[in-house]
Amino acid sequence: MTSTHQRAEAAIEADPTVPAIHITRDFAATAAHLVRAHTDPELFVRWIGPNGYETTIDHWDARTGGSYRYEQAGQGFHGCFHHVCDDRLVQTFTWEGMPEGVSLDTMTFEDLGGGRTRMHATSLVGSFEARDGMLSSGMEVGVNDGYAKLDALLADGLVA
Amino acid sequence: MTSTHQRAEAAIEADPTVPAIHITRDFAATAAHLVRAHTDPELFVRWIGPNGYETTIDHWDARTGGSYRYEQAGQGFHGCFHHVCDDRLVQTFTWEGMPEGVSLDTMTFEDLGGGRTRMHATSLVGSFEARDGMLSSGMEVGVNDGYAKLDALLADGLVA
Repeated sequence: MTSTHQRAEAAIEADPTVPAIHITRDFAATAAHLVRAHTDPELFVRWIGPNGYETTIDHWDARTGGSYRYEQAGQGFHGCFHHVCDDRLVQTFTWEGMPEGVSLDTMTFEDLGGGRTRMHATSLVGSFEARDGMLSSGMEVGVNDGYAKLDALLADGLVA
Repeated sequence: MTSTHQRAEAAIEADPTVPAIHITRDFAATAAHLVRAHTDPELFVRWIGPNGYETTIDHWDARTGGSYRYEQAGQGFHGCFHHVCDDRLVQTFTWEGMPEGVSLDTMTFEDLGGGRTRMHATSLVGSFEARDGMLSSGMEVGVNDGYAKLDALLADGLVA
């Protein structure tokens, strides 16, 4: 596989200098499609997280200054939307199993041409220990399963 | 001045390992007073920032999942409240003069006994360059002026 091929797996990388995780993933979609997939709750529940779990929305207001909460596999997740616009999402995230833990998540979208977009997602947390705990938690399964489900929704034209 | 004296100036310190600023400040107040001073908009505008500026609230909903925006000296500031409770505040912050910049701010409150409380505030940002820019911006004037105004409100019994 060379660098000219489609990137099917997400690149999940520890930042070398700050306690952040960077995820990079290419999609056959526009930035607008990807923003919609992250902000429309009916779409979001169809792809987020590992295969085989049902996601239910508790509340969802994906506007700058809004907030969200959802449940998946008996676990709760919540945060607030700091900034929502056409090319950038900034939001907070807490898994309620570790309520002291908060990440600041930023997503930006790079137009690759030909209807393809590279998503750059960064999760910033308060310590390297917390960051390394996230990386060793098996998060890549949920990330890659989720984005594969999103690929399928995009291919089926369901993120119009 | 020995360590047994009241700490009148805030300690403003760069974290040695992550791009965060830690502010520590003692108050003649309970944690409940300090939470109220940070969440009640009518109190907040009376102390936040440097002396001599008027602060006006655009919107303010200081609950978990709420958000805020205020203006001071012709500048706008906004964010969302990730978590609001009796002993911990977690919120985002952007100065609209640098809209790409977002900090994740956490405040906790340590009971010192005798009606005194030590506030621990941490602002986490995405890079050391951004953090060092904040530190070199003269932020200590606003921090120390603001907390002196808050001391006065507390002494006057206005944060009841």
